[in-house]
Amino acid sequence: MALEVAMLTLAAATVGGGTKPALMPWPSSIEMGAGELAVGPGFRIAVTGKGGALVERAAKRFEARLALQTGLVLPDPVAPSGGPGLEIRCGSAGKPLPHLGMDESYALTVTPEGARLEAAEPWGVLRGMETFLQLVVPGSSSSFRVPAVAVLDRPRFPWRGLMLDSGRHFLTLDTIRRTLDGMAAVKLNTLHWHLTEDQGFRVESRRFPELQRMGSDGLFYTQAEIRDVIAYAAERGIRVYPEFDMPGHSTSWFVSHPELATAPGPYRIERRWGVFDPTMDPTKEEVYRLLDGFLGEMAALFPDPFLHVGGDENEGKAWDASERVQAFKRQKALATNHDLQAYFNRRLSKIVTGHGKQMMGWDEILHPDLPKDTVIHSWRGQESLGAAAKMGFRGVLSNGYYIDLVWSADRHYATDPWDKGVDQLPEADRERILGGEATMWSEYVSSETVDSRIWPRTAAIAERFWSPRAVKDVDDMYARLEVVSRWLEWLGLEHRAGYTRMLERLAGRQHHELRMLADVVEPLEDYQRGDTGDYTQQTPLNRLVDAARPESDAARAFSRQVAALLADPARQVGREAIRARLAEWAGLEVRLRPLLESRAILQEAVPLAAEASALAAAGLEALGFLEQGMLAPAAWWSSRAPLLEREKRPATALEVAYRPSIRKLMEAAAGR
Amino acid sequence: MALEVAMLTLAAATVGGGTKPALMPWPSSIEMGAGELAVGPGFRIAVTGKGGALVERAAKRFEARLALQTGLVLPDPVAPSGGPGLEIRCGSAGKPLPHLGMDESYALTVTPEGARLEAAEPWGVLRGMETFLQLVVPGSSSSFRVPAVAVLDRPRFPWRGLMLDSGRHFLTLDTIRRTLDGMAAVKLNTLHWHLTEDQGFRVESRRFPELQRMGSDGLFYTQAEIRDVIAYAAERGIRVYPEFDMPGHSTSWFVSHPELATAPGPYRIERRWGVFDPTMDPTKEEVYRLLDGFLGEMAALFPDPFLHVGGDENEGKAWDASERVQAFKRQKALATNHDLQAYFNRRLSKIVTGHGKQMMGWDEILHPDLPKDTVIHSWRGQESLGAAAKMGFRGVLSNGYYIDLVWSADRHYATDPWDKGVDQLPEADRERILGGEATMWSEYVSSETVDSRIWPRTAAIAERFWSPRAVKDVDDMYARLEVVSRWLEWLGLEHRAGYTRMLERLAGRQHHELRMLADVVEPLEDYQRGDTGDYTQQTPLNRLVDAARPESDAARAFSRQVAALLADPARQVGREAIRARLAEWAGLEVRLRPLLESRAILQEAVPLAAEASALAAAGLEALGFLEQGMLAPAAWWSSRAPLLEREKRPATALEVAYRPSIRKLMEAAAGR
Repeated sequence: MALEVAMLTLAAATVGGGTKPALMPWPSSIEMGAGELAVGPGFRIAVTGKGGALVERAAKRFEARLALQTGLVLPDPVAPSGGPGLEIRCGSAGKPLPHLGMDESYALTVTPEGARLEAAEPWGVLRGMETFLQLVVPGSSSSFRVPAVAVLDRPRFPWRGLMLDSGRHFLTLDTIRRTLDGMAAVKLNTLHWHLTEDQGFRVESRRFPELQRMGSDGLFYTQAEIRDVIAYAAERGIRVYPEFDMPGHSTSWFVSHPELATAPGPYRIERRWGVFDPTMDPTKEEVYRLLDGFLGEMAALFPDPFLHVGGDENEGKAWDASERVQAFKRQKALATNHDLQAYFNRRLSKIVTGHGKQMMGWDEILHPDLPKDTVIHSWRGQESLGAAAKMGFRGVLSNGYYIDLVWSADRHYATDPWDKGVDQLPEADRERILGGEATMWSEYVSSETVDSRIWPRTAAIAERFWSPRAVKDVDDMYARLEVVSRWLEWLGLEHRAGYTRMLERLAGRQHHELRMLADVVEPLEDYQRGDTGDYTQQTPLNRLVDAARPESDAARAFSRQVAALLADPARQVGREAIRARLAEWAGLEVRLRPLLESRAILQEAVPLAAEASALAAAGLEALGFLEQGMLAPAAWWSSRAPLLEREKRPATALEVAYRPSIRKLMEAAAGR
Repeated sequence: MALEVAMLTLAAATVGGGTKPALMPWPSSIEMGAGELAVGPGFRIAVTGKGGALVERAAKRFEARLALQTGLVLPDPVAPSGGPGLEIRCGSAGKPLPHLGMDESYALTVTPEGARLEAAEPWGVLRGMETFLQLVVPGSSSSFRVPAVAVLDRPRFPWRGLMLDSGRHFLTLDTIRRTLDGMAAVKLNTLHWHLTEDQGFRVESRRFPELQRMGSDGLFYTQAEIRDVIAYAAERGIRVYPEFDMPGHSTSWFVSHPELATAPGPYRIERRWGVFDPTMDPTKEEVYRLLDGFLGEMAALFPDPFLHVGGDENEGKAWDASERVQAFKRQKALATNHDLQAYFNRRLSKIVTGHGKQMMGWDEILHPDLPKDTVIHSWRGQESLGAAAKMGFRGVLSNGYYIDLVWSADRHYATDPWDKGVDQLPEADRERILGGEATMWSEYVSSETVDSRIWPRTAAIAERFWSPRAVKDVDDMYARLEVVSRWLEWLGLEHRAGYTRMLERLAGRQHHELRMLADVVEPLEDYQRGDTGDYTQQTPLNRLVDAARPESDAARAFSRQVAALLADPARQVGREAIRARLAEWAGLEVRLRPLLESRAILQEAVPLAAEASALAAAGLEALGFLEQGMLAPAAWWSSRAPLLEREKRPATALEVAYRPSIRKLMEAAAGR
């Protein structure tokens, strides 16, 4: 354990440079040994034990990826035997499908003589293979290498998920599959598939085919396709469970079945974003009959024992407006809409349970009457989960992991499921908090852009779910994340490649120039994008804001430079590098204006470039004052300070990412 | 026509800059008008006429792509009506499937008031949509634009194909689909799917499932998948027809059916590249029985009337070694192995015809006894096709279009199916030459790298098959190709994105440096790669040679600079730019050596970088002599001239792409 802590405090700069392996998630226990294992010609992989066909197939994929990383021929039929290698030993085949609580632990021992990966079940083998692949680095002129290491690893939480919202924007099967590849690479084990929304009914029902026929624009997954996805995920140790959101978020159901809704309709697929009024009518028996039939069909399609019924954001307006519902509430002595929704949920719970599933829903479903095997999925936060746990309910946290809000990775990383008092709960209660899920709501992503919204940030969240709570050094995380981000692309993910492609589409031959701007801006966080335009499901997601990455690496590096400069009493450290960066950015407007003004699609970035340049120019002035050791005049501060405030309604939903660093320089210069 | 020629001679530099549209293939007739059509908010697309569901679906895809290019909301439900737009008018629904000789003609008229695309059949609509999308360019601060233009367009050849070899390396379904998207974009209309090879049997047979079970490593297409591909292609106006190569190239069949082979076996899937001995035994009735069953099944699976039986590269060694075959030849009075193969082909032709298909095969099958509806596919050349045409056989040319040989685009572009006397044939004979196919043999490509081997060069070949023969200006082609290459990536092709990804995998953070070298090298042409290593089907295709593009844009630009300099009697034109390039390249070795030497996978590039630098240094010396107006001493020439010769067995299958330009500089300096 002492060694583990020592490892964690190794300078981040050594990651990728050699000493500290760029593992993510960081293992629960790791000891570095002496020397290294050469991975060169003749390297052999042997599968032993009783892991069965799943492990055999995983070994084939592993070999292909190792070959891709190293250029080695694997297996090499002509290599002399007896060379070093990796033995993969699995104790048993375990259950055929990944499941909550499956044993994902493994031990990986690497010495200069060879490596051994051992696990009791195939799930641990899968996790350990990813660790091994992350350990393989260019070693010398003749081989790759793996440092000598002893890893004993197991996850902190058994539920480590990613939610994909196929409802608002349909995501192609390719997208789902490559996302599963990425999830497996960072040891996530649960895909939460959000399949119905106001904006689309994305699953094939055979009993009620009108649901997808009229509710999906033809964009839905067939049952065969869903079975394929489940099998693909299972091969990678990932559970797949569906969400059918109700009683709200269900407009797309009502296109074919207006009788399910409280208000009479007719209904059309919703094209805008937000919370809408159409709601299922909990007073009608035909609602429960259809749900029984539909959920029964889905329960058979998805083998996982959990079934998510949503339950969020029902504001009750349709219920309030209905005489029938009001009468029902009086008759049943249901005082509030929350009580009415609880009634609905109890009925729903019986249906779900009747089909052999455990019900899951967002915070709003929490009610003491529900059976205790219900799982609460929290968008509200740890306190909410803690309260549910005390009532005996298990919970999964997503508050803090909303990756659609385009926060920086470190902000998600700082969120822990045990924060806000959860760690003070009695162990029996705390154990009910199963883990967390990153949530990829899809208002502003398409199959083209979703990779850059999921990756690489979700790797940091995956570490939060897998690694010990003490693993939380941000600089260290970012240093490893940079390496892992590149590695993830080798699986076919496009979070890096898509950036260039989109910039080329926006700027043609001049994409290098546009990139100078794109590299230093970030999409507005939280829900601000919706305020900057009139978005619908049809709005193309192909603008600069869609190309831009959630986090500007350049701005983050710059903020570290500025912090170092300001920490230096002599104001010397890195000053010239800062000046050079600022000078480049100060020139952005002049350099880019001809391009931006000549293209309709870039027009919105004209004020952004101007702002970027003005901020950099103010930063240069501040640097000048600091250099001369003089306090900036008050008049200077008051003329420049407005730059530090963002436009209230910017023309494009982007922000200059180095603005906070300019503020620091300016405040230092002005002695504020 | 005068205007068309005028267009062709417009300076290439104007492409992308504004004047000349970057269309590829260039239309058979185009007249530029005055002004332009704005494509901005409220732009409307109306489908009229009788094109039916295929045109409706094509219009949906067209709208999505136009939205992606422009950021416009299409269809925009809130835009005021009556704005400018595009009317798509189709005369009839035509036959349900694309077919040889389908009407692909269309007329596209664009004025500032609106655009109209008219075609008699859906196939012409599909082609015209691509033309329209290529015409849409950034126009102003408020909209995109399409220049006023009158296009009357139809293909020169009815058979414009691409062959994909799924046999040697399995290509994923995603790869096949995105390739079809690219084909449709450049108006290719035929996918020739090479499905069986020594190295793999890639199609599911239900009658003989052992064929794929034992012959494919599990890498084959199910019949459902093949039907999906055919449907996907048909939506895009592309025929799909299969090739089952026989009697040679058929080792993978013999793994499960050794009795089909001349030699007794046993057989294993072939892992190496080349021409192998195992050959079907034409003397055995059971061979024809199995082929009848299998081809009958395939004839039902593929609706296209053509079925390719290969027939190439049977060297007859297995036949020569067989007593039984020798006796059979004597008995049947077949003097040569060619006669025996003709016997085999006559039997095969009866089987193929009996299942309602027309037989196609490589040059080797040509024999006067075959029915005249047989199609000859020529790897040998135009003379071969001309001879076949005179005998009454139709033909398709692939000689000159072997894109696996990594030639430059202009070399393929210079090859015309009417070369070598074909244009002198009587029209009736000449008409039998149906067109051509680019062939993507897959010894050295994987699903990851194949895009960069197909694109963008195949766009130039597609132009050769579609556009008038007179369209052949190379500079003009390259100027348009650069724009079209980028445009093709928007379909999801990865010929550009994959380059960066692979360089990042090879060099990590230092990929920019590696790119400096990668940008100026090219894979060795023709079959030289096989001489540089011990390749098998298992060899990873992830080295610098796999990342490098078939053509170095930088080297091509440099060769034009050098030509301009040498054409200038004062040796002034562009001299400093040339010097700067050479100085950068001369520094490659020093700059890259630490990286290359530290990574096993890049080790092989050490001598390449040294060669690149030495060549550039010699170029700088030559430039010095030219500048001083003095002839280089003979001793200088003799010491430097060896640089101009390539290594006989280079460590990596790459060539310094600017070597020919250095030769020109050196020869000029030495007065040679």
